[in-house]
Amino acid sequence: MGKVICAGLGPGDPELMSVKSHRAIASARHVAYFRKAGRKGQARAIVDDLLPKGVQEHAMEYPVTTEIHFSDPEYNRILSAFYDDWADRLEEITRTEDVVVLCEGDPFLYGSFMHLHSRLQGRAEVEIIPGITGMSGCWTATDQPITWGDDVLTVAMATLSEEELTERAKGTDALVVMKIGRNLPKLRRALATAGKLDDAWLVERGTMPGQTVQKLTEVTGDVPYFSIVLVHGQGRRP
Amino acid sequence: MGKVICAGLGPGDPELMSVKSHRAIASARHVAYFRKAGRKGQARAIVDDLLPKGVQEHAMEYPVTTEIHFSDPEYNRILSAFYDDWADRLEEITRTEDVVVLCEGDPFLYGSFMHLHSRLQGRAEVEIIPGITGMSGCWTATDQPITWGDDVLTVAMATLSEEELTERAKGTDALVVMKIGRNLPKLRRALATAGKLDDAWLVERGTMPGQTVQKLTEVTGDVPYFSIVLVHGQGRRP
Repeated sequence: MGKVICAGLGPGDPELMSVKSHRAIASARHVAYFRKAGRKGQARAIVDDLLPKGVQEHAMEYPVTTEIHFSDPEYNRILSAFYDDWADRLEEITRTEDVVVLCEGDPFLYGSFMHLHSRLQGRAEVEIIPGITGMSGCWTATDQPITWGDDVLTVAMATLSEEELTERAKGTDALVVMKIGRNLPKLRRALATAGKLDDAWLVERGTMPGQTVQKLTEVTGDVPYFSIVLVHGQGRRP
Repeated sequence: MGKVICAGLGPGDPELMSVKSHRAIASARHVAYFRKAGRKGQARAIVDDLLPKGVQEHAMEYPVTTEIHFSDPEYNRILSAFYDDWADRLEEITRTEDVVVLCEGDPFLYGSFMHLHSRLQGRAEVEIIPGITGMSGCWTATDQPITWGDDVLTVAMATLSEEELTERAKGTDALVVMKIGRNLPKLRRALATAGKLDDAWLVERGTMPGQTVQKLTEVTGDVPYFSIVLVHGQGRRP
Protein backbone atom coordinates (compact mmCIF):
# COMPACT_ATOMS: atom_id res chain seq x y z
CA MET A 1 0.00 0.00 0.00
CA GLY A 2 1.23 3.44 -0.88
CA LYS A 3 0.30 6.85 0.40
CA VAL A 4 -0.41 10.34 -0.86
CA ILE A 5 2.43 12.70 0.02
CA CYS A 6 1.53 16.35 -0.36
CA ALA A 7 4.84 18.14 -0.80
CA GLY A 8 4.83 21.87 -0.03
CA LEU A 9 7.10 23.52 -2.60
CA GLY A 10 7.60 26.88 -0.93
CA PRO A 11 7.36 30.30 -2.58
CA GLY A 12 8.92 29.47 -5.95
CA ASP A 13 12.71 29.26 -5.72
CA PRO A 14 13.40 25.48 -5.83
CA GLU A 15 16.18 26.00 -3.25
CA LEU A 16 13.53 27.12 -0.78
CA MET A 17 11.67 23.83 -0.66
CA SER A 18 12.32 21.71 2.40
CA VAL A 19 14.89 18.95 2.44
CA LYS A 20 11.98 16.56 3.03
CA SER A 21 9.92 17.71 0.02
CA HIS A 22 13.06 17.72 -2.11
CA ARG A 23 13.79 14.12 -1.27
CA ALA A 24 10.19 12.98 -1.79
CA ILE A 25 10.06 14.58 -5.23
CA ALA A 26 13.50 13.43 -6.35
CA SER A 27 12.55 9.80 -5.64
CA ALA A 28 8.92 9.93 -6.81
CA ARG A 29 7.42 7.42 -9.23
CA HIS A 30 4.15 9.36 -9.52
CA VAL A 31 3.70 13.11 -9.23
CA ALA A 32 0.42 15.01 -9.51
CA TYR A 33 -0.08 18.76 -9.67
CA PHE A 34 -2.83 21.29 -10.27
CA ARG A 35 -2.67 23.59 -13.25
CA LYS A 36 -4.84 25.77 -15.42
CA ALA A 37 -5.74 23.94 -18.64
CA GLY A 38 -3.29 24.69 -21.42
CA ARG A 39 -0.58 25.94 -19.06
CA LYS A 40 2.54 24.22 -17.83
CA GLY A 41 1.65 25.01 -14.25
CA GLN A 42 3.72 26.85 -11.65
CA ALA A 43 4.09 23.85 -9.32
CA ARG A 44 5.36 21.72 -12.21
CA ALA A 45 7.79 24.45 -13.27
CA ILE A 46 9.37 24.62 -9.80
CA VAL A 47 10.43 20.96 -9.96
CA ASP A 48 11.74 21.05 -13.54
CA ASP A 49 15.29 20.16 -12.55
CA LEU A 50 14.29 17.73 -9.86
CA LEU A 51 11.88 15.14 -11.31
CA PRO A 52 13.50 11.74 -11.76
CA LYS A 53 13.57 9.97 -15.12
CA GLY A 54 10.54 7.84 -15.86
CA VAL A 55 8.31 9.52 -13.28
CA GLN A 56 4.65 9.31 -14.20
CA GLU A 57 3.01 12.75 -14.28
CA HIS A 58 -0.62 13.44 -13.48
CA ALA A 59 -1.72 16.97 -14.44
CA MET A 60 -4.86 17.89 -12.52
CA GLU A 61 -6.33 20.57 -14.78
CA TYR A 62 -8.89 22.87 -13.19
CA PRO A 63 -12.13 22.63 -15.22
CA VAL A 64 -12.80 26.27 -14.43
CA THR A 65 -10.79 29.08 -12.79
CA THR A 66 -12.28 32.55 -13.08
CA GLU A 67 -14.73 32.00 -15.99
CA ILE A 68 -17.55 31.47 -13.47
CA HIS A 69 -17.77 33.40 -10.21
CA PHE A 70 -17.29 31.28 -7.11
CA SER A 71 -20.66 32.39 -5.77
CA ASP A 72 -22.38 30.60 -8.70
CA PRO A 73 -23.63 27.13 -7.61
CA GLU A 74 -22.41 25.82 -10.94
CA TYR A 75 -18.83 26.74 -9.96
CA ASN A 76 -19.17 24.67 -6.85
CA ARG A 77 -20.70 21.71 -8.67
CA ILE A 78 -18.00 21.60 -11.36
CA LEU A 79 -15.09 21.93 -8.92
CA SER A 80 -16.57 19.44 -6.52
CA ALA A 81 -16.84 16.81 -9.27
CA PHE A 82 -13.26 17.58 -10.28
CA TYR A 83 -11.93 17.04 -6.76
CA ASP A 84 -14.04 13.89 -6.36
CA ASP A 85 -12.57 12.49 -9.54
CA TRP A 86 -8.96 13.21 -8.56
CA ALA A 87 -9.45 11.87 -5.06
CA ASP A 88 -10.57 8.60 -6.71
CA ARG A 89 -7.59 8.56 -9.02
CA LEU A 90 -5.05 9.27 -6.28
CA GLU A 91 -6.62 6.61 -4.06
CA GLU A 92 -6.32 4.17 -6.96
CA ILE A 93 -2.57 4.87 -7.28
CA THR A 94 -2.02 4.32 -3.55
CA ARG A 95 -3.28 0.74 -3.87
CA THR A 96 0.18 -0.09 -5.22
CA GLU A 97 2.46 2.97 -4.94
CA ASP A 98 3.10 6.39 -3.39
CA VAL A 99 2.06 9.51 -5.25
CA VAL A 100 3.56 12.92 -4.53
CA VAL A 101 1.23 15.88 -4.98
CA LEU A 102 3.12 19.11 -5.66
CA CYS A 103 1.71 22.13 -3.82
CA GLU A 104 3.02 25.66 -4.10
CA GLY A 105 3.62 27.48 -0.83
CA ASP A 106 2.30 25.78 2.28
CA PRO A 107 -0.44 23.20 1.54
CA PHE A 108 -2.65 24.05 4.53
CA LEU A 109 -2.66 27.82 3.96
CA TYR A 110 -5.24 28.47 1.22
CA GLY A 111 -3.96 25.48 -0.79
CA SER A 112 -6.06 23.48 -3.26
CA PHE A 113 -4.82 20.17 -1.93
CA MET A 114 -7.06 20.45 1.12
CA HIS A 115 -10.05 19.68 -1.11
CA LEU A 116 -8.42 16.33 -1.92
CA HIS A 117 -7.23 15.87 1.67
CA SER A 118 -10.78 16.10 3.03
CA ARG A 119 -12.04 13.64 0.40
CA LEU A 120 -9.26 11.12 1.07
CA GLN A 121 -9.99 10.84 4.82
CA GLY A 122 -10.34 7.16 5.68
CA ARG A 123 -9.55 6.10 2.12
CA ALA A 124 -5.78 6.56 1.85
CA GLU A 125 -2.88 7.50 4.07
CA VAL A 126 -2.00 11.15 3.51
CA GLU A 127 1.18 12.90 4.64
CA ILE A 128 1.50 16.68 4.48
CA ILE A 129 4.94 18.29 4.20
CA PRO A 130 4.60 21.98 5.06
CA GLY A 131 6.30 24.62 2.95
CA ILE A 132 7.54 28.20 3.15
CA THR A 133 4.51 30.33 2.33
CA GLY A 134 4.35 32.57 -0.71
CA MET A 135 3.85 35.53 1.65
CA SER A 136 7.10 34.71 3.51
CA GLY A 137 8.90 34.72 0.17
CA CYS A 138 7.37 38.13 -0.56
CA TRP A 139 8.15 39.84 2.74
CA THR A 140 11.67 38.46 2.60
CA ALA A 141 11.92 40.03 -0.88
CA THR A 142 11.10 43.46 0.61
CA ASP A 143 14.09 43.04 2.97
CA GLN A 144 11.95 44.18 5.92
CA PRO A 145 10.41 42.15 8.75
CA ILE A 146 6.64 41.86 8.43
CA THR A 147 6.04 41.89 12.21
CA TRP A 148 7.87 43.15 15.32
CA GLY A 149 7.18 42.61 19.00
CA ASP A 150 3.47 42.13 19.59
CA ASP A 151 2.24 43.30 16.18
CA VAL A 152 -1.03 41.79 14.99
CA LEU A 153 -0.80 40.31 11.49
CA THR A 154 -3.89 40.03 9.29
CA VAL A 155 -3.96 37.92 6.14
CA ALA A 156 -6.91 38.71 3.89
CA MET A 157 -7.95 38.10 0.31
CA ALA A 158 -8.50 41.00 -2.10
CA THR A 159 -11.74 39.29 -3.13
CA LEU A 160 -13.36 40.74 0.02
CA SER A 161 -15.56 43.85 -0.27
CA GLU A 162 -13.97 47.29 -0.26
CA GLU A 163 -15.64 47.99 3.08
CA GLU A 164 -14.25 44.89 4.72
CA LEU A 165 -10.78 45.41 3.24
CA THR A 166 -10.83 48.96 4.65
CA GLU A 167 -11.76 47.73 8.12
CA ARG A 168 -9.11 44.98 8.00
CA ALA A 169 -6.43 47.44 6.92
CA LYS A 170 -7.42 49.90 9.67
CA GLY A 171 -7.58 47.32 12.41
CA THR A 172 -4.20 45.65 12.10
CA ASP A 173 -0.50 46.38 12.53
CA ALA A 174 0.77 44.26 9.64
CA LEU A 175 -1.25 43.25 6.60
CA VAL A 176 -0.87 40.68 3.83
CA VAL A 177 -3.35 40.70 0.95
CA MET A 178 -3.44 37.89 -1.58
CA LYS A 179 -5.45 37.18 -4.79
CA ILE A 180 -4.84 40.64 -6.21
CA GLY A 181 -5.29 40.74 -10.03
CA ARG A 182 -8.34 42.75 -11.01
CA ASN A 183 -9.13 43.45 -7.35
CA LEU A 184 -6.28 45.96 -7.25
CA PRO A 185 -8.31 49.18 -7.79
CA LYS A 186 -10.67 48.19 -4.96
CA LEU A 187 -7.77 47.30 -2.68
CA ARG A 188 -6.04 50.59 -3.47
CA ARG A 189 -9.15 52.54 -2.48
CA ALA A 190 -9.48 50.52 0.73
CA LEU A 191 -5.84 51.13 1.70
CA ALA A 192 -6.18 54.84 0.93
CA THR A 193 -9.30 55.13 3.12
CA ALA A 194 -7.47 53.29 5.90
CA GLY A 195 -4.51 55.67 5.59
CA LYS A 196 -2.10 52.90 4.64
CA LEU A 197 -1.67 53.23 0.89
CA ASP A 198 1.70 54.97 1.21
CA ASP A 199 3.05 52.11 3.35
CA ALA A 200 1.96 49.31 1.03
CA TRP A 201 4.25 47.21 -1.16
CA LEU A 202 3.41 44.99 -4.10
CA VAL A 203 5.55 41.92 -4.74
CA GLU A 204 5.27 39.91 -7.95
CA ARG A 205 6.93 36.54 -8.48
CA GLY A 206 8.51 36.59 -5.00
CA THR A 207 11.79 34.55 -4.89
CA MET A 208 11.44 33.65 -8.59
CA PRO A 209 13.15 34.93 -11.74
CA GLY A 210 11.54 38.23 -12.67
CA GLN A 211 10.73 39.10 -9.04
CA THR A 212 9.60 42.70 -8.61
CA VAL A 213 9.19 44.70 -5.39
CA GLN A 214 7.45 48.08 -5.69
CA LYS A 215 5.76 50.63 -3.51
CA LEU A 216 2.08 50.18 -4.36
CA THR A 217 1.81 53.89 -5.15
CA GLU A 218 4.33 53.37 -7.96
CA VAL A 219 2.55 50.43 -9.57
CA THR A 220 0.91 51.16 -12.92
CA GLY A 221 -1.13 48.79 -15.06
CA ASP A 222 -2.38 45.30 -14.32
CA VAL A 223 -0.84 42.91 -11.83
CA PRO A 224 -1.14 39.11 -11.58
CA TYR A 225 -3.72 37.37 -9.40
CA PHE A 226 -0.90 35.73 -7.46
CA SER A 227 0.96 38.91 -6.59
CA ILE A 228 0.90 39.94 -2.93
CA VAL A 229 0.39 43.29 -1.20
CA LEU A 230 2.13 43.90 2.13
CA VAL A 231 2.02 46.53 4.85
CA HIS A 232 4.79 45.97 7.39
CA GLY A 233 4.16 46.20 11.13
CA GLN A 234 6.07 48.86 13.03
CA GLY A 235 5.99 47.38 16.54
CA ARG A 236 8.33 47.45 19.51
CA ARG A 237 12.02 47.25 18.74
CA PRO A 238 14.83 47.63 21.26
CA MET B 1 34.64 40.29 2.38
CA GLY B 2 32.07 37.96 3.84
CA LYS B 3 28.40 38.39 4.58
CA VAL B 4 25.87 37.61 7.25
CA ILE B 5 23.54 34.82 6.16
CA CYS B 6 20.44 34.51 8.29
CA ALA B 7 19.26 30.94 7.80
CA GLY B 8 15.62 30.25 8.64
CA LEU B 9 15.49 26.82 10.27
CA GLY B 10 11.77 26.14 10.02
CA PRO B 11 9.50 24.81 12.77
CA GLY B 12 11.90 22.35 14.41
CA ASP B 13 12.20 19.14 12.38
CA PRO B 14 15.62 19.50 10.69
CA GLU B 15 14.14 17.89 7.55
CA LEU B 16 11.84 20.90 7.23
CA MET B 17 14.58 23.44 6.72
CA SER B 18 15.07 24.61 3.16
CA VAL B 19 17.65 23.09 0.88
CA LYS B 20 19.31 26.52 0.85
CA SER B 21 19.56 26.88 4.63
CA HIS B 22 20.73 23.28 4.88
CA ARG B 23 23.57 23.91 2.47
CA ALA B 24 24.59 27.19 4.12
CA ILE B 25 24.78 25.55 7.54
CA ALA B 26 26.53 22.38 6.40
CA SER B 27 29.33 24.45 4.87
CA ALA B 28 29.55 27.19 7.53
CA ARG B 29 32.79 28.23 9.19
CA HIS B 30 31.04 30.51 11.68
CA VAL B 31 27.55 30.03 13.10
CA ALA B 32 25.81 32.31 15.59
CA TYR B 33 22.53 31.70 17.40
CA PHE B 34 20.41 33.23 20.13
CA ARG B 35 19.76 31.33 23.34
CA LYS B 36 18.72 31.85 26.91
CA ALA B 37 21.78 31.89 29.18
CA GLY B 38 22.56 28.45 30.54
CA ARG B 39 20.51 26.62 27.90
CA LYS B 40 21.64 24.79 24.81
CA GLY B 41 19.23 26.76 22.67
CA GLN B 42 16.52 25.45 20.34
CA ALA B 43 18.13 26.80 17.16
CA ARG B 44 21.42 25.13 18.04
CA ALA B 45 19.65 21.85 18.82
CA ILE B 46 17.98 21.75 15.40
CA VAL B 47 21.36 21.71 13.62
CA ASP B 48 23.01 19.15 15.91
CA ASP B 49 23.56 16.64 13.12
CA LEU B 50 24.41 19.21 10.51
CA LEU B 51 27.22 21.45 11.77
CA PRO B 52 30.53 20.74 10.05
CA LYS B 53 33.64 19.86 12.02
CA GLY B 54 35.70 22.78 13.17
CA VAL B 55 32.89 25.33 12.82
CA GLN B 56 33.27 28.27 15.16
CA GLU B 57 30.18 28.77 17.32
CA HIS B 58 28.96 32.11 18.62
CA ALA B 59 26.25 31.77 21.27
CA MET B 60 24.34 35.05 21.56
CA GLU B 61 22.94 34.78 25.07
CA TYR B 62 20.01 37.06 25.90
CA PRO B 63 21.01 39.19 28.90
CA VAL B 64 17.37 39.15 30.00
CA THR B 65 14.26 37.28 28.86
CA THR B 66 11.23 37.56 31.13
CA GLU B 67 12.94 38.75 34.36
CA ILE B 68 12.08 42.35 33.47
CA HIS B 69 8.83 43.30 31.72
CA PHE B 70 9.32 44.63 28.20
CA SER B 71 7.52 47.85 29.13
CA ASP B 72 10.34 48.70 31.57
CA PRO B 73 12.83 51.14 29.93
CA GLU B 74 15.62 49.11 31.51
CA TYR B 75 14.54 46.08 29.45
CA ASN B 76 14.89 48.13 26.32
CA ARG B 77 18.27 49.55 27.30
CA ILE B 78 19.77 46.16 28.15
CA LEU B 79 18.49 44.44 25.02
CA SER B 80 19.49 47.33 22.80
CA ALA B 81 23.08 47.19 24.09
CA PHE B 82 23.08 43.42 23.55
CA TYR B 83 22.00 43.76 19.90
CA ASP B 84 24.48 46.61 19.34
CA ASP B 85 27.29 44.43 20.64
CA TRP B 86 26.40 41.44 18.48
CA ALA B 87 25.93 43.57 15.38
CA ASP B 88 29.50 44.78 15.95
CA ARG B 89 30.82 41.26 16.41
CA LEU B 90 29.06 39.90 13.32
CA GLU B 91 30.28 42.83 11.25
CA GLU B 92 33.78 42.09 12.47
CA ILE B 93 33.55 38.47 11.26
CA THR B 94 32.34 39.57 7.82
CA ARG B 95 35.56 41.49 7.27
CA THR B 96 37.13 38.15 6.42
CA GLU B 97 34.44 35.44 6.32
CA ASP B 98 30.74 34.58 6.13
CA VAL B 99 28.79 33.96 9.29
CA VAL B 100 25.53 32.00 9.34
CA VAL B 101 22.98 33.12 11.94
CA LEU B 102 20.55 30.32 12.85
CA CYS B 103 16.95 31.49 13.20
CA GLU B 104 14.03 29.29 14.20
CA GLY B 105 10.94 29.54 12.03
CA ASP B 106 10.92 32.37 9.49
CA PRO B 107 13.38 35.17 10.36
CA PHE B 108 11.10 38.06 9.33
CA LEU B 109 8.03 36.84 11.25
CA TYR B 110 8.57 37.90 14.89
CA GLY B 111 12.24 36.78 14.73
CA SER B 112 15.03 38.21 16.89
CA PHE B 113 17.40 38.50 13.98
CA MET B 114 15.61 41.60 12.71
CA HIS B 115 17.16 43.58 15.56
CA LEU B 116 20.59 42.70 14.15
CA HIS B 117 19.39 43.17 10.58
CA SER B 118 18.35 46.76 11.22
CA ARG B 119 21.67 47.50 12.94
CA LEU B 120 23.74 45.97 10.14
CA GLN B 121 22.22 48.13 7.38
CA GLY B 122 25.03 49.74 5.40
CA ARG B 123 27.67 47.95 7.47
CA ALA B 124 27.62 44.39 6.13
CA GLU B 125 25.92 42.44 3.38
CA VAL B 126 23.02 40.50 4.84
CA GLU B 127 21.15 37.65 3.14
CA ILE B 128 17.91 36.31 4.58
CA ILE B 129 16.83 32.74 3.83
CA PRO B 130 13.13 32.40 4.74
CA GLY B 131 11.87 29.37 6.63
CA ILE B 132 8.71 27.42 7.30
CA THR B 133 7.02 29.22 10.18
CA GLY B 134 6.44 27.58 13.55
CA MET B 135 2.71 28.16 13.05
CA SER B 136 2.75 26.23 9.74
CA GLY B 137 4.40 23.34 11.56
CA CYS B 138 1.64 23.51 14.18
CA TRP B 139 -1.36 23.65 11.85
CA THR B 140 0.14 20.83 9.79
CA ALA B 141 0.39 18.85 13.05
CA THR B 142 -3.38 19.26 13.57
CA ASP B 143 -3.92 17.63 10.14
CA GLN B 144 -6.42 20.35 9.24
CA PRO B 145 -6.04 23.35 6.92
CA ILE B 146 -5.86 26.65 8.79
CA THR B 147 -7.68 28.62 6.07
CA TRP B 148 -10.13 27.88 3.23
CA GLY B 149 -11.40 30.05 0.39
CA ASP B 150 -11.48 33.68 1.49
CA ASP B 151 -11.00 33.14 5.23
CA VAL B 152 -9.33 35.97 7.10
CA LEU B 153 -6.39 34.80 9.22
CA THR B 154 -5.31 36.77 12.29
CA VAL B 155 -1.99 36.17 14.01
CA ALA B 156 -1.81 37.70 17.49
CA MET B 157 0.33 37.39 20.59
CA ALA B 158 -1.15 36.17 23.88
CA THR B 159 0.63 39.09 25.54
CA LEU B 160 -2.21 41.37 24.35
CA SER B 161 -4.94 42.37 26.80
CA GLU B 162 -7.89 40.05 27.38
CA GLU B 163 -10.16 42.63 25.79
CA GLU B 164 -8.09 42.86 22.63
CA LEU B 165 -7.67 39.08 22.40
CA THR B 166 -11.46 38.73 22.68
CA GLU B 167 -12.03 41.23 19.86
CA ARG B 168 -9.39 39.57 17.68
CA ALA B 169 -10.91 36.14 18.23
CA LYS B 170 -14.40 37.41 17.44
CA GLY B 171 -13.41 39.31 14.34
CA THR B 172 -11.59 36.64 12.37
CA ASP B 173 -12.21 33.34 10.60
CA ALA B 174 -8.92 31.66 11.48
CA LEU B 175 -6.73 32.54 14.45
CA VAL B 176 -3.15 31.82 15.49
CA VAL B 177 -1.99 32.89 18.95
CA MET B 178 1.67 32.74 19.91
CA LYS B 179 3.66 33.45 23.12
CA ILE B 180 1.30 31.45 25.32
CA GLY B 181 2.96 30.34 28.60
CA ARG B 182 1.46 32.13 31.57
CA ASN B 183 -0.90 34.06 29.31
CA LEU B 184 -3.00 30.90 28.88
CA PRO B 185 -5.72 31.63 31.49
CA LYS B 186 -6.29 35.08 29.97
CA LEU B 187 -6.40 33.63 26.44
CA ARG B 188 -8.83 30.94 27.54
CA ARG B 189 -11.20 33.56 28.95
CA ALA B 190 -10.93 35.62 25.77
CA LEU B 191 -11.70 32.63 23.55
CA ALA B 192 -14.63 31.63 25.75
CA THR B 193 -16.10 35.16 25.58
CA ALA B 194 -15.65 35.11 21.80
CA GLY B 195 -17.44 31.75 21.59
CA LYS B 196 -14.40 29.99 20.15
CA LEU B 197 -12.92 28.06 23.07
CA ASP B 198 -14.41 24.75 21.92
CA ASP B 199 -12.80 25.14 18.49
CA ALA B 200 -9.31 25.95 19.75
CA TRP B 201 -6.30 23.64 19.61
CA LEU B 202 -3.01 23.83 21.49
CA VAL B 203 0.13 22.51 19.81
CA GLU B 204 3.38 22.05 21.72
CA ARG B 205 6.70 21.26 20.06
CA GLY B 206 5.13 21.20 16.57
CA THR B 207 7.08 18.87 14.18
CA MET B 208 9.57 18.00 16.95
CA PRO B 209 10.02 14.93 19.16
CA GLY B 210 7.42 15.12 21.92
CA GLN B 211 4.92 17.01 19.75
CA THR B 212 1.47 17.23 21.33
CA VAL B 213 -1.81 18.30 19.72
CA GLN B 214 -4.76 18.84 22.07
CA LYS B 215 -8.13 20.49 22.12
CA LEU B 216 -7.58 23.53 24.33
CA THR B 217 -10.50 22.49 26.52
CA GLU B 218 -8.59 19.31 27.40
CA VAL B 219 -5.35 21.04 28.36
CA THR B 220 -4.53 21.00 32.07
CA GLY B 221 -1.57 22.59 33.81
CA ASP B 222 1.10 24.91 32.45
CA VAL B 223 2.16 25.15 28.82
CA PRO B 224 5.36 26.51 27.29
CA TYR B 225 5.74 30.08 26.07
CA PHE B 226 6.46 28.78 22.58
CA SER B 227 3.35 26.63 22.26
CA ILE B 228 0.75 27.83 19.77
CA VAL B 229 -3.05 28.07 19.93
CA LEU B 230 -5.02 27.67 16.70
CA VAL B 231 -8.62 28.11 15.60
CA HIS B 232 -9.13 26.79 12.07
CA GLY B 233 -11.12 28.72 9.47
CA GLN B 234 -14.23 27.07 8.11
CA GLY B 235 -14.57 28.90 4.79
CA ARG B 236 -15.83 27.97 1.35
CA ARG B 237 -15.07 24.44 0.18
CA PRO B 238 -16.41 22.89 -3.01
